[in-house]
Amino acid sequence: MAIKRTLIATAMLSLGLFSAISHAKDNVDLMITDAMVLTMDQGKAVYNNGVVAIKGNKIVAVGDASLEKRYHASQVLDVDGDIVMPGLINTHTHVSMTVFRSLADDVPDRLHRYIFPLEAKLVSREMVRIGANLGNIEMLKGGVTTYADMYYFEDEVAKTVDKIGMRAILGETIIKFPVASAKNADAGIDYTLNFIEEYQNHPRITPAFAPHGPYTNTTETLQKVAKLSLEKNVPVMIHLAESDREEQVIAERANGMSPVEYMDSIGALNKNLVGAHMILIDDKDIELVKKSDMGVAHNMSANIKSAKGVSPALKMYDQEVRIGLGTDGPMSGNTLSTIDEFNQVAKVHKLVNKDRAAMPPIKVIDMATMGAARALHMEDKIGSLEVGKRADIIVIDTKAPNMVPVYNPYSALVYSANSANVRHSIVDGKILMQDRQILTVDEKQIVKEAIEFTQKVRETVIESGEVVQ
Amino acid sequence: MAIKRTLIATAMLSLGLFSAISHAKDNVDLMITDAMVLTMDQGKAVYNNGVVAIKGNKIVAVGDASLEKRYHASQVLDVDGDIVMPGLINTHTHVSMTVFRSLADDVPDRLHRYIFPLEAKLVSREMVRIGANLGNIEMLKGGVTTYADMYYFEDEVAKTVDKIGMRAILGETIIKFPVASAKNADAGIDYTLNFIEEYQNHPRITPAFAPHGPYTNTTETLQKVAKLSLEKNVPVMIHLAESDREEQVIAERANGMSPVEYMDSIGALNKNLVGAHMILIDDKDIELVKKSDMGVAHNMSANIKSAKGVSPALKMYDQEVRIGLGTDGPMSGNTLSTIDEFNQVAKVHKLVNKDRAAMPPIKVIDMATMGAARALHMEDKIGSLEVGKRADIIVIDTKAPNMVPVYNPYSALVYSANSANVRHSIVDGKILMQDRQILTVDEKQIVKEAIEFTQKVRETVIESGEVVQ
Repeated sequence: MAIKRTLIATAMLSLGLFSAISHAKDNVDLMITDAMVLTMDQGKAVYNNGVVAIKGNKIVAVGDASLEKRYHASQVLDVDGDIVMPGLINTHTHVSMTVFRSLADDVPDRLHRYIFPLEAKLVSREMVRIGANLGNIEMLKGGVTTYADMYYFEDEVAKTVDKIGMRAILGETIIKFPVASAKNADAGIDYTLNFIEEYQNHPRITPAFAPHGPYTNTTETLQKVAKLSLEKNVPVMIHLAESDREEQVIAERANGMSPVEYMDSIGALNKNLVGAHMILIDDKDIELVKKSDMGVAHNMSANIKSAKGVSPALKMYDQEVRIGLGTDGPMSGNTLSTIDEFNQVAKVHKLVNKDRAAMPPIKVIDMATMGAARALHMEDKIGSLEVGKRADIIVIDTKAPNMVPVYNPYSALVYSANSANVRHSIVDGKILMQDRQILTVDEKQIVKEAIEFTQKVRETVIESGEVVQ
Repeated sequence: MAIKRTLIATAMLSLGLFSAISHAKDNVDLMITDAMVLTMDQGKAVYNNGVVAIKGNKIVAVGDASLEKRYHASQVLDVDGDIVMPGLINTHTHVSMTVFRSLADDVPDRLHRYIFPLEAKLVSREMVRIGANLGNIEMLKGGVTTYADMYYFEDEVAKTVDKIGMRAILGETIIKFPVASAKNADAGIDYTLNFIEEYQNHPRITPAFAPHGPYTNTTETLQKVAKLSLEKNVPVMIHLAESDREEQVIAERANGMSPVEYMDSIGALNKNLVGAHMILIDDKDIELVKKSDMGVAHNMSANIKSAKGVSPALKMYDQEVRIGLGTDGPMSGNTLSTIDEFNQVAKVHKLVNKDRAAMPPIKVIDMATMGAARALHMEDKIGSLEVGKRADIIVIDTKAPNMVPVYNPYSALVYSANSANVRHSIVDGKILMQDRQILTVDEKQIVKEAIEFTQKVRETVIESGEVVQ
């Protein structure tokens, strides 16, 4: 009997009903009511007129309207039928580059001919802080609650993330030539180790290594980073299988190997790795990716804008590779909410597969939430609305003219929504944006500071003889 | 001397300076100041800190800040550095289908298996009115000031357009099977003739014929429509070279001809025609299109969502074909502002051309404004901000976080903007939306009515045994 009761209790707990039944009325901090809840759990449960209850930074119940009677909430957010879903997770960006957005967008071989020289002149702690503040606001207003970043002076980015209240994996760039934050790759590794030391216990910030790419680092550096990441148990983010140039350099270095084969051969393809782009990969590479348990960031918008091609992301998703959506940086994407990626991800995969049923909306939303959490190896904490997970939640307006009607919420999100349809953003149980107003930082001041900084960019780019298109 | 003065006056007039110099201070109704003006005129003139002056429904001056002193305006709209540009022109939609949006998006052979049967059950004057009201709001809020529509009961759509104050070409559908507004194609033609009679003198509404497609009409019908359109001097809108099924039916009917060749061979390819999609065309077809002086509606988003392919739109644009952007209907696109098309148009053409410099932003914006005006043969009235043209103008927020910074306004519009960045929309000199509030109709009531109507759709679709995904 006792066993049976425990089993029932466990079953009820997994349904989020336990505390509701075992007590008359439990206290919670926040309750979201009258919601079209997309849980994005294993069974993709949807609750119309649903409820989510939050205590501290965690979800304590998710279910139908009956839950409402079982909790006393300090704060109730009645969302009037709007969509309530897990916060979006942007698996790949360079947030501080917002201050360079719309510069020289269509220049051929842009990274090497334009961006690296631009960065050599302009990257500084100030630039990183100003750019990150702007990008954070854009993401939070676009429903991104967690993002994975690769750039310089990530300790500066960390301060901005801490302040606004978002969640992030922040990877300090390691690269073989001198950059603003380090004179060489070893100095970059040392910089990262200090950053890891400083932030290893932060509740929302995960410090990480970010070797720029296999072709912009030596084998020795990549191996050193892989070893340290396993010791410190921190992620490694890298651009991988992205460009023809990379493929060529690696083939020359490693007897014709593909970038993925090379990374595997040197022992750098492991469960801590997150590879961004992964365009130039074949079935053999996908096998290695799967076996390694690494994560993949799929950045459709940036990849087609640069005409690099379309990653076989659908194939990887269908083979249960850890894969989620990313935007890439604002010089590449150019926007930072993965909502802006949704319809491109769905439609371009249909186009290249010559099949309108390919990449249906539910897969896109899965790749923006649970898939992205899995890609970052954070699926135990975020990615779905389930009891015990962190309360990272967004609310999408279903009464905006472009969103009406919602026969199918996944279709509406993928084919109709834009980033301005996000009404509220909640991270770690705290409402950070309510009715499109950011509550934790001063949006107007941040935008003003960014616009002022652009004058410096204009002067530097023009003085140096670079052409602003 | 007299001649010389006239020449100078003409030159000044063409610069929009004439009335400013010849009088101390002219009265105008509306003056937009402190604008980043993208004129989209022949030379693509841009004025920073620019001014647009409007009298009645026309633009009387466009230029730099010095113009401000030369006019006395009843109303001044200081836009604080925001982008001011021609209103967007959506060259192809089915506005009333908003009430069906997000239904069965990815069903194969959807038009014939799903949409036609759905329409047989649900199209009515009421449905057309409710759907058009919703779509009008969405477009106006997304910066569309003129649209070209193909559907049933277009006289109902006309009433909604008249009321909200937008500009439209409204084409009554002509099709060989019975539909809600006509029992056959001849009845459809009669319906259209009555509609033309009723609206031929409306200042903002142009009635038109809209034979659904070459394969869904007989040769006789297509020839009758072509003849009548030339007599009445009204446009003919048609789906053309869109699908494999169409190509096959026409090839069987006309000795292996392509849809474009067939239309030419029966005398239906002429200056009044606007062909939507134009995916399945080759260089020979493009030659015929060019020679005919017909217009083309390029609907990237709908075409790739349905996996039909990518129209050679860039090639047509470069060959000076009359071509502009369209969204297609809300069951296809699924949104109605061409802003939502911008980044897909730029990026997918780069992808298929394997060239990141292909389809640069300025071409996309040209296809959304002057190109679209040319496609609809309305370039004498709309499409650019030039003296004497209708004052159809939109203002785009440059301080929204996703839009900062604007080093290149065309890049910012194409790669960063979404439809919610439109602040004001002006048609025929009248502000219809100000700070995202629609001034001429009741947005909340319209959305409410649309949501109520969806209950009827749900019941009908479920009763009939159709599955809502």
